[in-house]
Amino acid sequence: MDEFEIIAKIFAPLATAPGAFGLTDDAAAIPPRPGFDLVVTTDQIAEGTDFLPGTSAERIAKKALRVNLSDLAAKGAEPFGYLVNLTLPQADRAWLESFAKGLADEQTQARISLLGGDTGKGLLAIAVTAFGHVPSGAMVRRAGARPGMAVYVTGTIGDSGGGLAVLQGKGGALAAADRDVLIDAYHLPKPPLRFGSRLAQWANAAIDISDGLIADLEHLARASGVKIAADAALVPLSPSLRALWGEAAIVKAATAGDDYQIAFCADPSRDAEIMAAAHNSGTAVTRIGTVEPGAGVTLMLKGRELAIPGSGYKHF
Amino acid sequence: MDEFEIIAKIFAPLATAPGAFGLTDDAAAIPPRPGFDLVVTTDQIAEGTDFLPGTSAERIAKKALRVNLSDLAAKGAEPFGYLVNLTLPQADRAWLESFAKGLADEQTQARISLLGGDTGKGLLAIAVTAFGHVPSGAMVRRAGARPGMAVYVTGTIGDSGGGLAVLQGKGGALAAADRDVLIDAYHLPKPPLRFGSRLAQWANAAIDISDGLIADLEHLARASGVKIAADAALVPLSPSLRALWGEAAIVKAATAGDDYQIAFCADPSRDAEIMAAAHNSGTAVTRIGTVEPGAGVTLMLKGRELAIPGSGYKHF
Repeated sequence: MDEFEIIAKIFAPLATAPGAFGLTDDAAAIPPRPGFDLVVTTDQIAEGTDFLPGTSAERIAKKALRVNLSDLAAKGAEPFGYLVNLTLPQADRAWLESFAKGLADEQTQARISLLGGDTGKGLLAIAVTAFGHVPSGAMVRRAGARPGMAVYVTGTIGDSGGGLAVLQGKGGALAAADRDVLIDAYHLPKPPLRFGSRLAQWANAAIDISDGLIADLEHLARASGVKIAADAALVPLSPSLRALWGEAAIVKAATAGDDYQIAFCADPSRDAEIMAAAHNSGTAVTRIGTVEPGAGVTLMLKGRELAIPGSGYKHF
Repeated sequence: MDEFEIIAKIFAPLATAPGAFGLTDDAAAIPPRPGFDLVVTTDQIAEGTDFLPGTSAERIAKKALRVNLSDLAAKGAEPFGYLVNLTLPQADRAWLESFAKGLADEQTQARISLLGGDTGKGLLAIAVTAFGHVPSGAMVRRAGARPGMAVYVTGTIGDSGGGLAVLQGKGGALAAADRDVLIDAYHLPKPPLRFGSRLAQWANAAIDISDGLIADLEHLARASGVKIAADAALVPLSPSLRALWGEAAIVKAATAGDDYQIAFCADPSRDAEIMAAAHNSGTAVTRIGTVEPGAGVTLMLKGRELAIPGSGYKHF
C-alpha cells in the first residue's frame, strides 16, 4: 500500500469529526469552544521500550492512544480528538487494518475522532497527540498541591510492571488467572477517563502515573513545592500482584511505572464527593497520604520510612 | 543527559506561551480564540528520507519546523505554537543544544512557542505538530477550486530537488554560487509564511508543494473535482536550476518535490490584490495556469502537452 492508499483506506474512516475533512486535506480545523481551553498532550511508544516485539498491531494502537488519553484524564480534560504519527518498517495491509481496528475501538469508547497524522518508514514507533477540553483556566496542574491536602490514586498500582515481569519469565508459579490479569494490565492500560473528565471539580493537582507512583508523586511534589507522605499500607495493590511479589509488592509496585492511573491531591473536605464520583464512574479511588510542608516523597510502613531504590523510567 | 534534564535545560526555554507552563506539566492548554479555528498539522522527517546523514542538528530542527509551518501557510493560518516528538540514538548535549538553537531561531522569526513534546530512543526522526489560527470556517481547503479560476504558485519550483541532485554528486560543472543556492533550498525550505497568513482573503483552494508541483496540483484537482491546466513556460524556475538542468529543468522541477511553496487557486478578478499582497510580504507569486472542467493536471509547452513521468514521492 502506498501512503495515499493508507490514508484513504485505513485511516480516513476514523476521521469522523467535521474539521478532520475526512483526511482529504493538509490540516484539521478545531473550532473554538467558548469557555473551554484545548488541552494538548503527546506521547510516543516504541517497540522494545513500551511494547514487546510480536505485540499485535491492535494492542499497540490501543496502548498508544490510551497512554495519551491518560494524560488528558489526569489534567481533567474531556477527550476530543487525536493525531497519529506512525513509523513503520513496511506497509503491510493486514497489520495496518489491525492497527486501525485498535484505534476504532478506542475512539468509539472515548467518543473522539482521528484528526490527522503522518506516516514514515523506519523502526516501528507510534506517536499520538491527543486533544481535550477543560473549562477555561481549569486544567489540573501538577503545581496545585498545598499542605493539608489529601493524596489519592485511582485503580491499583503496579499491575503493569507485574505483567512485564511475567512476560519476561519472572512469573514463577503464579496461577494462570493472575498471570492474565497482570499481562492484560501491561498490554492495555485502563486509564480512568470518565473519572478524569470530572477531576477539575475537586482536584487541585494531578499527574498520570507513567514513570512510577513514587517518581510521579515526586514530579508533583516538586512542581507544587511540597512534601508528599504516602502510607504504604494504603497503596492499592491487586490480589494478583500480591500473589506475584508477596512482601516486596509495595516497593516494586511503587517504582514500576506504566500504570496510567491518576494520582491527585484535593482538600480532605471534598472526600465524600470524590468517593461518590469514583463510584458513579466505576473507578476505584483510594486515599493514600497527605501533603505536608517540605520536599520529596516518603513512603511509610508501620511508622518506618521505606527505602526506595532509584525510581522512575529513564530513556537515556 | 536524562529525559528530565533534556526537558528542563534544552526545551523549557523555548516554551514561551503561558499555556505551555514552561514544560513543567503533562500537557499544554490553548485558550480559545473567539472567531478563529485552530488549524492543526503534523509532518515527520527522518534521516535518509528527508535529510542526509551528517546534517547539522540546527538545520534538521529548522527543516522539521518549516515543513509544518508550510502547511499552516498553505491553509491560510497564522502560526501559534508547536510540539516536537524527537527520537534519538543517544542524548548528546552538543547535538541537542544545536537542535534547540535551530528551533529558537525559527520560533522567534515565526513568533510561535514550543508547547510540548516527547523524546524516545531510536533512529533519528523528528515529528512536529504545528498549530495556527484562521478566521472561523475560513481554512483554505484543497477542495475549493472551480473552473475559471487562476492557478498561482509562490517562489520558484524545483530548487530543493536540484539541491538534492547536487548533494548526490549530480551537479556536473555547475558554478559554486548556483550550487549553494540549490543546496540551501534543499536544506532549508523557505515557506512564504507572511503571505500564507493572508491567503484566506483571496484563495479558494491551496496546497503546499511537498510531493512535487504536478503531484500536489493533482491532489488539489482531485479534491476539487476539476482539471488544472498549467503552462510550463510560466512555471517559475531559478537561474541556478536552469543552469543545472537546462532544457529538462521544467519537467524535473515539476516532479521534484520538497519545495514548500504554495500552489493556490483564486478568482482572476483578485489578481491585482494578490500581486500587491505578494509584493508587501516579499514573496514572488506567479500565475501559471487555469482551472477547467474535467480531471487531472496537464502541463502544456507551446501548445503541446508535456509527458510527466510517474510523479510524487512515496514512502512505501
